[in-house]
Amino acid sequence: MTKTNAGNFFEDFRIGQVLRHATPRTLTEGDRALYQALFGSRFSLQSSDEVARKAGYKQSPIDDLLAFHVVFGKTVPDISLNAVANLGYAECRFHRPVFPGDTLSTVSEVIGLKENSDGATGVVYVRSTGRNQRDEVVIDYVRWVMVRKRDKASPAPEAKVPALASAVDASSLFVPQGTSFRGFDVEASGSPHLWDDYEAGEKIDHVDGVTIEEAEHMMATRLYQNTAKVHFNQFTEGQGRFGRRLIYGGHVISLARALSFNGLGNAVLVAAINGGRHVAPCFAGNTVFAWSEVLAKAPLEGRDDLGALRLRTIATKDLPCGAFPGPLEKGYAEGVILDLDYWVLMPRR
Amino acid sequence: MTKTNAGNFFEDFRIGQVLRHATPRTLTEGDRALYQALFGSRFSLQSSDEVARKAGYKQSPIDDLLAFHVVFGKTVPDISLNAVANLGYAECRFHRPVFPGDTLSTVSEVIGLKENSDGATGVVYVRSTGRNQRDEVVIDYVRWVMVRKRDKASPAPEAKVPALASAVDASSLFVPQGTSFRGFDVEASGSPHLWDDYEAGEKIDHVDGVTIEEAEHMMATRLYQNTAKVHFNQFTEGQGRFGRRLIYGGHVISLARALSFNGLGNAVLVAAINGGRHVAPCFAGNTVFAWSEVLAKAPLEGRDDLGALRLRTIATKDLPCGAFPGPLEKGYAEGVILDLDYWVLMPRR
Amino acid sequence: MTKTNAGNFFEDFRIGQVLRHATPRTLTEGDRALYQALFGSRFSLQSSDEVARKAGYKQSPIDDLLAFHVVFGKTVPDISLNAVANLGYAECRFHRPVFPGDTLSTVSEVIGLKENSDGATGVVYVRSTGRNQRDEVVIDYVRWVMVRKRDKASPAPEAKVPALASAVDASSLFVPQGTSFRGFDVEASGSPHLWDDYEAGEKIDHVDGVTIEEAEHMMATRLYQNTAKVHFNQFTEGQGRFGRRLIYGGHVISLARALSFNGLGNAVLVAAINGGRHVAPCFAGNTVFAWSEVLAKAPLEGRDDLGALRLRTIATKDLPCGAFPGPLEKGYAEGVILDLDYWVLMPRR
Repeated sequence: MTKTNAGNFFEDFRIGQVLRHATPRTLTEGDRALYQALFGSRFSLQSSDEVARKAGYKQSPIDDLLAFHVVFGKTVPDISLNAVANLGYAECRFHRPVFPGDTLSTVSEVIGLKENSDGATGVVYVRSTGRNQRDEVVIDYVRWVMVRKRDKASPAPEAKVPALASAVDASSLFVPQGTSFRGFDVEASGSPHLWDDYEAGEKIDHVDGVTIEEAEHMMATRLYQNTAKVHFNQFTEGQGRFGRRLIYGGHVISLARALSFNGLGNAVLVAAINGGRHVAPCFAGNTVFAWSEVLAKAPLEGRDDLGALRLRTIATKDLPCGAFPGPLEKGYAEGVILDLDYWVLMPRR
Repeated sequence: MTKTNAGNFFEDFRIGQVLRHATPRTLTEGDRALYQALFGSRFSLQSSDEVARKAGYKQSPIDDLLAFHVVFGKTVPDISLNAVANLGYAECRFHRPVFPGDTLSTVSEVIGLKENSDGATGVVYVRSTGRNQRDEVVIDYVRWVMVRKRDKASPAPEAKVPALASAVDASSLFVPQGTSFRGFDVEASGSPHLWDDYEAGEKIDHVDGVTIEEAEHMMATRLYQNTAKVHFNQFTEGQGRFGRRLIYGGHVISLARALSFNGLGNAVLVAAINGGRHVAPCFAGNTVFAWSEVLAKAPLEGRDDLGALRLRTIATKDLPCGAFPGPLEKGYAEGVILDLDYWVLMPRR
Repeated sequence: MTKTNAGNFFEDFRIGQVLRHATPRTLTEGDRALYQALFGSRFSLQSSDEVARKAGYKQSPIDDLLAFHVVFGKTVPDISLNAVANLGYAECRFHRPVFPGDTLSTVSEVIGLKENSDGATGVVYVRSTGRNQRDEVVIDYVRWVMVRKRDKASPAPEAKVPALASAVDASSLFVPQGTSFRGFDVEASGSPHLWDDYEAGEKIDHVDGVTIEEAEHMMATRLYQNTAKVHFNQFTEGQGRFGRRLIYGGHVISLARALSFNGLGNAVLVAAINGGRHVAPCFAGNTVFAWSEVLAKAPLEGRDDLGALRLRTIATKDLPCGAFPGPLEKGYAEGVILDLDYWVLMPRR
């Protein structure tokens, strides 16, 4: 029996199956610093213990997306090692902050299966849940991926496609307990614009662009223990579809989030990801730009210090975003690589 | 109203104006490790908690230049986002050590303004002060930058050029309180040469060279939250003056300091920067070399365990320094990229 | 007198000579995170404080090979700055775990000398010992390097070649005290295969490949304060034998160890290195693959929870390892870069 992990094929999944993923991972100040060096984020809550303490945290929390990538990375060896494509995310909620010293683990449950008409692949829906060392849920989300069948002749399972919310309802967003952002220091944060100042329909070009290097996206992806082969192996990828290593889609999400600081400097927390599409692949040498639209605003029950903004952030490659390139009638404007729909929390006046 | 930061233009500055910069930043062991990986420094005081404790510190202090870059980085969005050129530094003093866990913030005061004769740009002089979470000054320095005017038609302000010391006086250098370098372990430090062994006029070729990669200088610069666009955006810079990303001048300073270990292995602390010129731009792929001249020696009042050396360190690109390339009658020898004048502290016999 | 370190030449070594190397180095969570980002290791013991505590550790230990590289790096300025080639390692044992906060130092003793027949070089054998801040031995090993003579006319020393064990005896392996791997969590570790499941002679293709970038190997090597010039200086190396920077052999060892997770996921600790050969040079752009053979199995005295596996791991460049490329009658198959013989510890059923 081979001792190497060949990953699961479509036939290996069944509805209700629970996969407890390896490898638990203790996050530290070291991970935070690497994330800082790789993405250059400037949100003050994740940058300064003093800002965090003033808001009621014991110390500065780990960036929400760093925690997401770690929770996600664990699922790759079991869920998507034989994936053809990552099709989507939904219902991703950030339940509570992660601090240096916390150890994250992930469990996934198969909640949907649907073989494709070609008989060679199928779509697997999983709900993945990241927990800390106290078994408290930190992040959960649904994703669906197209996975190869081991054998085209295998019978198709009964199709089940889960009903998924098109967006996380604002009323179910988690707000960090024991915190207050009343009187949030906007000189320290670098932006005078608070929740009250944004309007649905408002579009913001985040202006700056950042070029990705091979070393950067590989270091980031290894930091998360994400083992998807396409990111690391030029020998094999050089002979493949693109002729080069593909950048982890989450790398673009983190770059877009960091770029969005310029215009959304007080979007202190990511509360939910409603959905996301990696519209086109991204490669080393590409320069990533981003713009955002405010899709909606929502107050948060019991909190007059924080409000929620639903954002759509579009990232592009080698295409500045002054003209807000995005979805077309059919498909997307050339150059668009990410279409992300998510909720952020922002202090109120 | 746009919510993105367009930076300040020359017209936006006035004498006496105080700018409190975003984003406070807590430095940690993670930042230290990244700095180590990026520059390879070997000064024992910053490498070993044991060496630091023996000298009276609670633990190993953060590299002086890492703290400098963080303090400096905060000023970029407000001071130099529209800068044409960084013209100089002066009167930079390191007041006290920074330890993991300290949170640094920066405030700048405009101390000089002078419009250029072209009417399109002007020189802005600021004194920037970095403080820790106890509001203690950690680093202060003056820098002046050439900044674009928003509108050529704007009237020129009254010119004021501050009087700046050509060098920090040795008597005003800060020496870390509660420390003693008596009996400093030169086997641990790797160099037998102490303050007593150096002479004014002595020149030292630091011999080694190190090639810079794009991923390295971008990771370093993001670690400092320095947002200057020219370092990150190949799409735009590829169409610009140099056709490529420009490396943050401070990256070269840190490389030169790390290279200077070979010959100045007991220069445990940087106490002041008297002045610095980025003589020519540096790009990824360049190999940086360095040499130093001892400009002066000074004892330190009340300390017989430490002395000060005033150094001039020249860094070059793709040019070994055995022949001590430096300033010519007019300009600099081809290949010189940095001319830095600074004080270091070194244990005495 | 020059103050730069020119390194030692063959004439500078004498039998019994003890070299106390600079620079003591405190390892932290920052170093662990960088090592994670650079190699992507997934062994659960080094990834999770919770896994480590369950096994009796106070927290997750630093990766054995990270500690090795740091101990090794210190010897470079004194032993191998003028080396022509690293010829081999032997008798390397890992005595006890290293934790964040520990400070490592290295001392070497010259145990063998043999001038080469060309009269221009000689082989130097040293036993290097890494210790923590409590003066406890952490790692010791023998290595031998071919070092240039300063002057061909210098008389040859009396030849002495130490008798070295071809392998560390299983009975002398160090097993971490106060630990128990009874009931080791193989869901958390990601591999169901324990010591009992491996057989001598078994070969495992580790399947995955990872491409190395210049920024990565330089950052790793600087993290260890390894100053060997060939890794960093493209200006000089571009004119040299290979036309490019040479990657530190230890980088390949760490990559191979990380790749070996796929097939050896419960090989929680490296206990000894019996020998290692860097068969061919490795350069940025190469994709590294690896396979392993189980050479032997050994129980550990007094431990029914852990056993030892003697492994031979072969790493290749740009050559997948499905066909187990390795030693030929004479030399090695084209593409092989590393032949490493070592002991790992693995939980038993």
